[in-house]
Amino acid sequence: MEKIKIGIIGLGTVGTGVVKILHQNQEIIRNRLGATIEIAKIADLDLTSDRGIPLNHFPLTQNAWEVIEDPEILIVVELMGGEEPAASFLLKAIQQGKHVVTANKALLSTRGAEIFQAAYKHKVDIGFEGSVCGGIPLIRSIKEGLAANKITAIFGILNGTANYILTRMTEEGKEFDEVLAEAKNLGYAESEPSLDINGTDTTHKLSILLFLIYGQEIHPEEIYTEGITQIHPLDIEFAKELGYRIKLLAIFKEEDGEIEARVHPTLIPGASILSHVNGVNNAVFIRGNAVGSTLFYGQGAGMMPTGSAVVSDLMEISRNILKGKPGVLLPFFQKGKSRIKLKPKDKFFTRYYLRFSAQDRPGVLSQISGILAKYNISISSVVQKDKQGDGGVPIFMLIHKSQEESVDKAIKEIDALPVTVNNTVLIRIEDHLVE
Amino acid sequence: MEKIKIGIIGLGTVGTGVVKILHQNQEIIRNRLGATIEIAKIADLDLTSDRGIPLNHFPLTQNAWEVIEDPEILIVVELMGGEEPAASFLLKAIQQGKHVVTANKALLSTRGAEIFQAAYKHKVDIGFEGSVCGGIPLIRSIKEGLAANKITAIFGILNGTANYILTRMTEEGKEFDEVLAEAKNLGYAESEPSLDINGTDTTHKLSILLFLIYGQEIHPEEIYTEGITQIHPLDIEFAKELGYRIKLLAIFKEEDGEIEARVHPTLIPGASILSHVNGVNNAVFIRGNAVGSTLFYGQGAGMMPTGSAVVSDLMEISRNILKGKPGVLLPFFQKGKSRIKLKPKDKFFTRYYLRFSAQDRPGVLSQISGILAKYNISISSVVQKDKQGDGGVPIFMLIHKSQEESVDKAIKEIDALPVTVNNTVLIRIEDHLVE
Repeated sequence: MEKIKIGIIGLGTVGTGVVKILHQNQEIIRNRLGATIEIAKIADLDLTSDRGIPLNHFPLTQNAWEVIEDPEILIVVELMGGEEPAASFLLKAIQQGKHVVTANKALLSTRGAEIFQAAYKHKVDIGFEGSVCGGIPLIRSIKEGLAANKITAIFGILNGTANYILTRMTEEGKEFDEVLAEAKNLGYAESEPSLDINGTDTTHKLSILLFLIYGQEIHPEEIYTEGITQIHPLDIEFAKELGYRIKLLAIFKEEDGEIEARVHPTLIPGASILSHVNGVNNAVFIRGNAVGSTLFYGQGAGMMPTGSAVVSDLMEISRNILKGKPGVLLPFFQKGKSRIKLKPKDKFFTRYYLRFSAQDRPGVLSQISGILAKYNISISSVVQKDKQGDGGVPIFMLIHKSQEESVDKAIKEIDALPVTVNNTVLIRIEDHLVE
Repeated sequence: MEKIKIGIIGLGTVGTGVVKILHQNQEIIRNRLGATIEIAKIADLDLTSDRGIPLNHFPLTQNAWEVIEDPEILIVVELMGGEEPAASFLLKAIQQGKHVVTANKALLSTRGAEIFQAAYKHKVDIGFEGSVCGGIPLIRSIKEGLAANKITAIFGILNGTANYILTRMTEEGKEFDEVLAEAKNLGYAESEPSLDINGTDTTHKLSILLFLIYGQEIHPEEIYTEGITQIHPLDIEFAKELGYRIKLLAIFKEEDGEIEARVHPTLIPGASILSHVNGVNNAVFIRGNAVGSTLFYGQGAGMMPTGSAVVSDLMEISRNILKGKPGVLLPFFQKGKSRIKLKPKDKFFTRYYLRFSAQDRPGVLSQISGILAKYNISISSVVQKDKQGDGGVPIFMLIHKSQEESVDKAIKEIDALPVTVNNTVLIRIEDHLVE
């Protein structure tokens, strides 16, 4: 039986998962592939920590170049994360004619074009299923299963840590900081969780999905991004009363030739499937012009789910090698197309949830609503509640579809009023998630 | 630019969808494929009905053999449905060395082994993404995205008509017959809906999924199947009170080397994502030993969703042709393995919902519970309600995990009691759907 030799750079959580799966499911993999995948070399700076697997079965090295330059290794798996030296390793492996697999979303979202172009030039396969939503076969579904479709919208819960925090805030009414601290203790949040809670990780993944759709790099910095650190239990509670849930959503829409991509906390209807995606799970709602609405759900991170995605890439590339014709063609990769532009934040046009915080005295509501009227912003519902602790009187408002530029201007004026206490909270609403 | 010529046999709903998608999305398809897919011939007995597409663009024929024997046609798409002559057409096309695409679930579930073996022998590709769950890229996800996994469980809502009926019964409290009649009027049920409501269509699809998992044919008749025609609003209502929903579920589990496959109405927890899959939508929950739990959701039938799946197959096969190496190897197809056996109905071991219907007199509950005790069946909760119309006093009961053989025997004795009015209703429960 034929052997495909691979090398792994980076033996952290996901790398360990890959080694475990290749061992544990070796018979299944061999049967499905008609060949074996053999780990010829593993590189990591730390060769001593206990990963729960017998490391002495593999040739280990602290020098990644030994993997990249080994002539017997056909596929290099980069699982070290970070931009450098991961990028150099990947590019060098590609230049050596090796196929590559990576789960490095930060790298692909910022230097994807360079890496895909190199793979294209050197006619090697590149697998990156593990870079978005761990075990969910999302990349493959967009590239192949939905290949006949123009993708017109994506709504995704792409970060498990953020979703875990919002879920517990929703279920238990707790404050953000309290839940974050608990999540760290339980291992659901890293000790340095900034990228997860400030939305950046979600934006990286959305950027990779946009690459698949448009065949060109949309840099994460081009995508408007807002995290969940400002979400208050009051907002979650009131959203619930209105039949909504708050989720950190990656949003993409193409409507009338205009392309919108943004990441922010969002009110979504309780009747939508996405609103029932809880805990560390991820889910992506994809609308195609032929298939209609689909949703993909599963664990978006972790040793075994992401390992499953990496091994699926290894199997696909191995199959291509066995057939004598690796993929080379990245079906989604389009050269020479005119650069797409994202709709600027000022032009967002959607419904909004607003929470004003005001002094408890006559005339406040009339002043606020007067300013909204001045900007032609139409109110669809308003509720005022009793004073809460330190914060003043909360006034909750849903407004009809409005242009964000006007909403921002109105809020600025309202927040400058002597009668308002804290800055106004704005959360965007997505209503069209119910099929 | 290269052209891949295809022929279509059967221009019904799905065939028309395929023609529409190939036209409407031709630029996207061309860009992603680097080639064009050209319809060289369409065969159908009815060449005159208006399908909303200009038929005069295509060479039409009433003779399917003209498609099969056309030397220029590389891929034959069979969309006529039914067993014969579809099977003969498919097999003949395969023998001629043509790649084939089909969405014919009834055919694949009963004669899949023969057809896959022929494709294997003649080294041609066979695409059948459209045969299970329409537009959801499920087949591809199991074959490729989850290829590194041993699949240990599947829970699927695989029939849109049955799900639509149960959804409306749940939301409106109506009777089965009334909702079915309305569904027919609205076009959500066919005029002859037997296969949808008696579970057979779901079983066909489950059988195809089992083929993917085990590489061998499990005939639909081997799979225990029960439809939804006996579901009463009382059961739906009481399930709701207990926090459950009733769904027609395809169930597969492998536990301790025992394989279980069955199709029947099932109580599932309201906190599970599957319980929120409503209307004509389909969803499949798949558990893999590496990836954990995943769920795939979308429209399971219809012109455009199923057309999307067929065109995705056409694109994949075209890509293989362009590379000079069609797939030939069916990764899941395993020869010479010992025949798997499904657990017989008597050995099912699960929780049950029971509804007894009894006369309103003293001692009834004691007689019923006495018989259950005799068979060692342990009650987890019981509720008796007021007499309902014609039916006697309903006694609702949930019982702990029991072997179905004992439950059947107990029910037989209970139904023979002079105090029971109608036969006992039994619905199985699946609790482990919440992640």
